[in-house]
Amino acid sequence: MTGSQATAPAPAPTDPGSGRDAILRAARRAFTQRPYADVTIRGIAADAGVSPSLVVKHFGRKEELFKTVADFGPAAEELFDAPLDELGRHMVITLVRRRREQQTDPLLRVVFSLGNRDERSLLRDRFHEQVTEALTARLPGHERALRAELIAGHLLGLGATLSLHREGAGALATPEHLADLYAPALQTLIRG
Amino acid sequence: MTGSQATAPAPAPTDPGSGRDAILRAARRAFTQRPYADVTIRGIAADAGVSPSLVVKHFGRKEELFKTVADFGPAAEELFDAPLDELGRHMVITLVRRRREQQTDPLLRVVFSLGNRDERSLLRDRFHEQVTEALTARLPGHERALRAELIAGHLLGLGATLSLHREGAGALATPEHLADLYAPALQTLIRG
Repeated sequence: MTGSQATAPAPAPTDPGSGRDAILRAARRAFTQRPYADVTIRGIAADAGVSPSLVVKHFGRKEELFKTVADFGPAAEELFDAPLDELGRHMVITLVRRRREQQTDPLLRVVFSLGNRDERSLLRDRFHEQVTEALTARLPGHERALRAELIAGHLLGLGATLSLHREGAGALATPEHLADLYAPALQTLIRG
Repeated sequence: MTGSQATAPAPAPTDPGSGRDAILRAARRAFTQRPYADVTIRGIAADAGVSPSLVVKHFGRKEELFKTVADFGPAAEELFDAPLDELGRHMVITLVRRRREQQTDPLLRVVFSLGNRDERSLLRDRFHEQVTEALTARLPGHERALRAELIAGHLLGLGATLSLHREGAGALATPEHLADLYAPALQTLIRG
């Protein structure tokens, strides 16, 4: 904290515990809610309740932290981790639970990259590869790429509308009830 | 063009023609693609191919132009202009056609307001009133507010995925074919 220890070469962290998770959550929030240029390590650290030097120790500078946060792999793995005939329901319930537990949407941040041609295109490329193409590869039947794009649309739309109506009817509904209403459409696109 | 005429007081415009439309399209693009603070009248004028003073003459300063652009009323009127039993298909086809004709999504810009608490909250309030509540009022059956939120989610998600996969399979599909795949889910939510 007073400087000398924080800047001394540190051994690799052996506890991937709550500090790391809190930093990741804060970084996802920051890169979702603000333009890239306005995000600071200091702000992320303050939000996570840790020192800026701890953020840098775990994740490096802003660009490296952004690359870590731009990884949709773990979210996609969790969202797609169900047999095909239950996948629609699993995706809706998982998405809603993750949003509520982690106070951030696992996919929606890619939408904020749409207006931004430079640094954020990494987000789009990762999304194509880790979400749309991964889903395309799992789908049976015809027009798999088109159906995967539309399934991604359903998931992004669910996150968007829940974020947009934070005090609305969707905020009060259980994940299972949201799946009752929203998952049949996904399942139809999955089945093909 | 050389100054004296452009800055002289001008009579109210009598032709609400292509100049106005071009300015509105450019303004929607600008407020969608950039944070509010980065949008300039000068940039909008350049994109629309008109002088900055013409923008101000038609729409006022940036804040007034933003309020005009934050109006979802005309888009909602067009999207919802069909009998209930054809509304799902009508919404998908209308959304896709509008996106392609006007090179901007009629609803998606509200999503960009999510991370922004101050000036953009107007966008969310207008969306709630002109889209979600208008839709709620038209729906039959139970849980109308929840279903309206999810229908809004489907529409936002369609726009998001088409924007995200600009060179993808969805970009090559006809509006009618997209409706074949995407509208049945909307229609189920509309029917209740």
